[in-house]
Amino acid sequence: MADYDLLTIGNAIVDIIARTDDAFLREAGIEKGAMTLIDASRAEDLYARMGPATEMSGGSAGNTVAGLVSLGGTGAYFGKVCDDQLGRIFAHDIQSLGIRYETTPLVGEPPTARSMILVTPDGERSMNTYLGACVELSPADVVAEIVAASRVTYFEGYLWDPPRAKDAILQAAKIAHDAGREVAMTLSDSFCVHRYRAEFLDLMRSRTVDIVFANEAEALALYQTEILEEALHHLGQDAGRLAVVTRGPDGCVTVEGSTIQAFPATFVPHVVDTTGAGDLFASGFLRGYTAGLDHARSARLGAIAAGHIISQIGPRPQVPLAALPEVRAILG
Amino acid sequence: MADYDLLTIGNAIVDIIARTDDAFLREAGIEKGAMTLIDASRAEDLYARMGPATEMSGGSAGNTVAGLVSLGGTGAYFGKVCDDQLGRIFAHDIQSLGIRYETTPLVGEPPTARSMILVTPDGERSMNTYLGACVELSPADVVAEIVAASRVTYFEGYLWDPPRAKDAILQAAKIAHDAGREVAMTLSDSFCVHRYRAEFLDLMRSRTVDIVFANEAEALALYQTEILEEALHHLGQDAGRLAVVTRGPDGCVTVEGSTIQAFPATFVPHVVDTTGAGDLFASGFLRGYTAGLDHARSARLGAIAAGHIISQIGPRPQVPLAALPEVRAILG
Repeated sequence: MADYDLLTIGNAIVDIIARTDDAFLREAGIEKGAMTLIDASRAEDLYARMGPATEMSGGSAGNTVAGLVSLGGTGAYFGKVCDDQLGRIFAHDIQSLGIRYETTPLVGEPPTARSMILVTPDGERSMNTYLGACVELSPADVVAEIVAASRVTYFEGYLWDPPRAKDAILQAAKIAHDAGREVAMTLSDSFCVHRYRAEFLDLMRSRTVDIVFANEAEALALYQTEILEEALHHLGQDAGRLAVVTRGPDGCVTVEGSTIQAFPATFVPHVVDTTGAGDLFASGFLRGYTAGLDHARSARLGAIAAGHIISQIGPRPQVPLAALPEVRAILG
Repeated sequence: MADYDLLTIGNAIVDIIARTDDAFLREAGIEKGAMTLIDASRAEDLYARMGPATEMSGGSAGNTVAGLVSLGGTGAYFGKVCDDQLGRIFAHDIQSLGIRYETTPLVGEPPTARSMILVTPDGERSMNTYLGACVELSPADVVAEIVAASRVTYFEGYLWDPPRAKDAILQAAKIAHDAGREVAMTLSDSFCVHRYRAEFLDLMRSRTVDIVFANEAEALALYQTEILEEALHHLGQDAGRLAVVTRGPDGCVTVEGSTIQAFPATFVPHVVDTTGAGDLFASGFLRGYTAGLDHARSARLGAIAAGHIISQIGPRPQVPLAALPEVRAILG
C-alpha cells in the first residue's frame, strides 16, 4: 500500500501569463511554442515590455501532481522556491490541494522562479523562464520516506537545466526502485531534448526511468528523426516499461516493446491557452495508471484533463476535475 | 485640452482569487457579496484555509482606470504599494497599460495590500481585504500637476478606511476644481456607506464631488431607505452634477436634478465572476462621458464593459476592450 499515488519533482515556478500577438513575439525575439531559459536581466527587460498579466502557480511537474490530485489521486511534490511572496504563493497553492510539499525554501537570493508565458490568439504559449531559486535543488531535498511511499516518482526533463537537480533525481530513482516503485519522466520540450539527448537516452537504457512521457516533437528530437514510426520503434526498445507519446488533437500512442496502441483526444471547441496541456495529460494518464486502469481508460483521463486545461487560462485546473461527469464515468 | 481623461485614486491591491462554495463562506465566517476589512493575522488564517488561487492586480479605482484605458482612453493613477513582489506586479500591470503611475512605494512594512476574493458558483464574489501599505497613502502622494491635467479625478469611498487618504482626496479635489476639472467618486460598497454615510453626504453637499457612482444597495444605504425612487430623488438634490446608479441586470439610472433616465444592461449568458462589475461599469461610463458622449451611449459603454468583466475571472479585462465590435460601433 502506497501513501501517495504520485510524487513529482520539478522546477517550482510561478507563471506570469499574458495575452499578446505574434508581432510582439517577433519584436521581443521569443521562440514561439518553446520554453526558453532567460537570465535575471532579460527577465526584467521582458517583464517591462509585456502587458498586464495574471499570476498562477505553475511548473510542469507541479502542474502534473496538481492535476492528479484534482482527479482524486494523492500526491507529493519536491521543488525549490525562495522564502518570498511568490514562493509563499507557490507553497500555498500546492499545499491547499492536499499535496505533501515540504521542500525547505531558500532564504535570500535568488528569488522564486517565474516563467513569463505569452499566449497568442491561436492559443499557443511561449515560455520565458527565469530559474531563480530552482538552481538550488539538490539531493538534500530528496525525502527518502516520501519517495519510498509513492507508487510512481515522476520528474521533468527540465531538471537537467539547474546544476544539481539531476543528482537529486538519480538518488530518488534509486530509492524508488529499492522500494519496488516505478520512475517516470517527461522529456519536457524539444529544445530541452536537444540539450540533453544523450543523457535522456541513458536514463531510459540504464532503466533509471521506467515510463517516459513525450509529445511528438520531443520523441522525434530524441531520435533525430522526422518519422514518428521510427521514434516509436526506438522508444519501444528503450523505455523500460512504457512510453506515452501525445499528438495534440490526434490523441496519444502507448508503446510497450513492439506493442503500439493509439487513443483519441477529446474534442475541444475553442483552444484558449495550451499552457499545461502535456502536464495535465500526464496527470490524467497517471491517475488511471496508478489506479490500475487499462491504457485506454488512462489515455481517456489524460485527454479529458488536457482538453479541460487548454479551454482555460493557466496551467492548473480551477475547478475539481474529479467532479466532471466524464471523469466520474471512468473513476466512479 | 487635458493630458488624461481620467485620474483615479484608490487602494492599490493585488487580488487573490479562488473558486469556492457557500459552505466555505459560512464556515470561514465570510459576509457574502461584501468587502470585509481584515487584519494581518486573519489574512494569514484565511489564506491557509482557502484553495489554490490566481493573482491579478485589482483595487476598485485601479480597475476603473485600467478599463477606461482598455477602452481607448488615457489615464493616471495614485495608490500605495510596498516595494515587494506583489507591489512590483501591481505597478507593472498598471504601467504596462500606458497608465501614468508613479506613487512612491513604501519601503519595508506593511506589505502590499491583497484581497482574498472567494467566488461562489453563482458568480458572486466575497472580498476579504488586508489593506497593508494602503494605510500610508497621504497628501504627499497627490501630484498636483497630474490632477490639474485630468478631465475627471475619481476616487473610491473605500479610501475612507485608511487613515490619511481622505486628506489626499480633499487636496486633490481642490486642485481639480481650481483647474476647472470635475471630481467623481464611487460609494464602493453598502457596508462602506454605513461606515461613512455622513461624510459621503457631506462630500456631495459641499460640492467636493460632482459625479457619484453607486449601485442600488449603496444608494439605498446612503439615504437609509428601502425605496429606490426616494434615494434617486435625494441623489438628484445632493449630487452636484450627476449621479449614476447601477442595478445589475436591470441596467442603470442617471440622475441630474429632477431628471431621471434609465438605460438597459447587456445580456450576459453566463456570469463567471462578478468581481469588477461596478468598477468596469464606471470605466465605460466615464470613457463616454470624458469623450463628450450622451448618457445613453456612455451607459451602453458601461454596460458592455461590465458585461465583459463578469464573463471572465478577475477584475481587469484580459483583451483590449476597444477592439470589441460593439465598442467600436460606439467609439469608432
